[in-house]
Amino acid sequence: MDFSPVKELILSKKSFIITSHVTPDGDAIGSLIGLSIALEKMGKNVYPVLNDVVPKRYLFLPRVNSIIKENALSEKKDVIICLDSADSERLGFKNPLKSYADIIVNIDHHKSHVLFGDLNFVDPSASSVGEMVYDLIKHLGIKLSYDIAVCLYTAIITDTGATKHSNTTSSALRALADFVELGVRPEKVSWEVFEKKSLNTLLLLKETLKTLKISKNGKIAWLVITKDILEKTNTLEEDTEGLIDYARSIEGVEVALLFKEKDCNKIKVSFRSNSWIDVSEIAKKMNGGGHAKAAGCIVEGSIKEVEKKVVKTVEEYMKEGLYGRNNKFT
Amino acid sequence: MDFSPVKELILSKKSFIITSHVTPDGDAIGSLIGLSIALEKMGKNVYPVLNDVVPKRYLFLPRVNSIIKENALSEKKDVIICLDSADSERLGFKNPLKSYADIIVNIDHHKSHVLFGDLNFVDPSASSVGEMVYDLIKHLGIKLSYDIAVCLYTAIITDTGATKHSNTTSSALRALADFVELGVRPEKVSWEVFEKKSLNTLLLLKETLKTLKISKNGKIAWLVITKDILEKTNTLEEDTEGLIDYARSIEGVEVALLFKEKDCNKIKVSFRSNSWIDVSEIAKKMNGGGHAKAAGCIVEGSIKEVEKKVVKTVEEYMKEGLYGRNNKFT
Repeated sequence: MDFSPVKELILSKKSFIITSHVTPDGDAIGSLIGLSIALEKMGKNVYPVLNDVVPKRYLFLPRVNSIIKENALSEKKDVIICLDSADSERLGFKNPLKSYADIIVNIDHHKSHVLFGDLNFVDPSASSVGEMVYDLIKHLGIKLSYDIAVCLYTAIITDTGATKHSNTTSSALRALADFVELGVRPEKVSWEVFEKKSLNTLLLLKETLKTLKISKNGKIAWLVITKDILEKTNTLEEDTEGLIDYARSIEGVEVALLFKEKDCNKIKVSFRSNSWIDVSEIAKKMNGGGHAKAAGCIVEGSIKEVEKKVVKTVEEYMKEGLYGRNNKFT
Repeated sequence: MDFSPVKELILSKKSFIITSHVTPDGDAIGSLIGLSIALEKMGKNVYPVLNDVVPKRYLFLPRVNSIIKENALSEKKDVIICLDSADSERLGFKNPLKSYADIIVNIDHHKSHVLFGDLNFVDPSASSVGEMVYDLIKHLGIKLSYDIAVCLYTAIITDTGATKHSNTTSSALRALADFVELGVRPEKVSWEVFEKKSLNTLLLLKETLKTLKISKNGKIAWLVITKDILEKTNTLEEDTEGLIDYARSIEGVEVALLFKEKDCNKIKVSFRSNSWIDVSEIAKKMNGGGHAKAAGCIVEGSIKEVEKKVVKTVEEYMKEGLYGRNNKFT
């Protein structure tokens, strides 16, 4: 990725909003703080903006308290740099981006990016925006500090799922090595991001595992989180993150489902697949969406009704899918 | 680490037993196969020996079926290379090692290594024996193949807990990057080693979580696996790996314990600590051993008796430990 145009822009301008998407993850927050520190080192006026709450697990990051919301911005700035956001809506600003800054710059790795900036740096082969920001910082000639390193380390391990996902490239691993040499302690970051759990979250896992069901052919597994379970374990929606992976990890399972009871007779359904099923297509049938291997939708009805309906839909889709695939070879 | 003496030895000898410890983990098996392939490439006669069963999760490794047990060895060999084993007993051979080979070589990273070889390469700062074997292979001038790379990748990610443990050094990360460049797919190895679970293993997790207990001060958490639970869920000892981490991951917990009921009124106790407690000292008091943050011992008695006794011992040690620490500052 040639960052020369953005280098020129950064050198010539003074005030920068740096922002990322709502429901922020470690890549959004780590990249945002890391780049903010780097531009401050260059003497720029930097406004790190997130229009959402930072999840507890990222509160250990340096400068996390310097993040502001859009309502704390006063006059218009020169540039807004948007990180990890495929479209401008995901940034959660009330007004069009051009009302906050003259020039819009995107740095992202989503294939579905709609190129809404004046300058767009989109690299779907990058493990994470954290890795792209690292390349940019090197290109800018900024000396990496521990604070930048720990932010970008967090960004990369979040998006690569602790170096377990298919986007764990050799360049991502070499970036992590560089950060460790700057003093980042892998066990400390991993503890904060992945491991540390409240006792209640563990009780939530226990209760959720009790609901595990598997289809007769062993290809679909699902879990249910009722409002009762959340209440009983004193946990929140954000504590349910990752639970669906317990169903997905079962040998032979292709599609995992998680049913979450919401208010007003509505059930939030999450889908994960392991290899050949595109769950976004199933979710779309039920007015949802997502990626091939991770999707979701909201279905009206009781848990029991929705469970039955969705499992049946997945079963039928699997049959069709298999039929379609076999057809190709006859 | 200067591998020149072992290079000389390898160049001058013909037949090699390569072996590692019983209850083998990914570092033991990955290093063993990786080094075996490398020495075969040098035209040596190689006998990869493990006196135990290879856990199912490592059966995806190349050449895993070429591993033999000691009873398949006939005449005496020139050299036995022992990997990842702090003492010779852990290798599970029936007779003294010298009856199997003329020269004993150790390659290990345990601080507690007793240097039982004629040549001992022990580096406690190494992330894993896999990383040491990688250095040795480079020193030998052997061209790395995909098969060697996937074995050593497995070794390193097992011992670093998917780059989450404190032994995740920058050199370990750079080694992983090298292996990815040779075609290793992180998501595939991680799926086999960490993620893929049998349905029964998940049921074991569910049953084990039901036994979770926490001390009044919230600093000790423990789990119990009875023979009944293993029977009910149709699981084996090897399926219990990693379960103790659920107790260790609870915020505020310093020491996690896992009690496993064995035959003959014996309980296997595993210890993990998060920061300031050296659990190997506690295990030693009960004729066990290990590392500062991971240790174990076997205690006679019923589950209830042993649970009570060990938790009390840990509580007392914690009090002493705190007292000792405070003392230094008065």
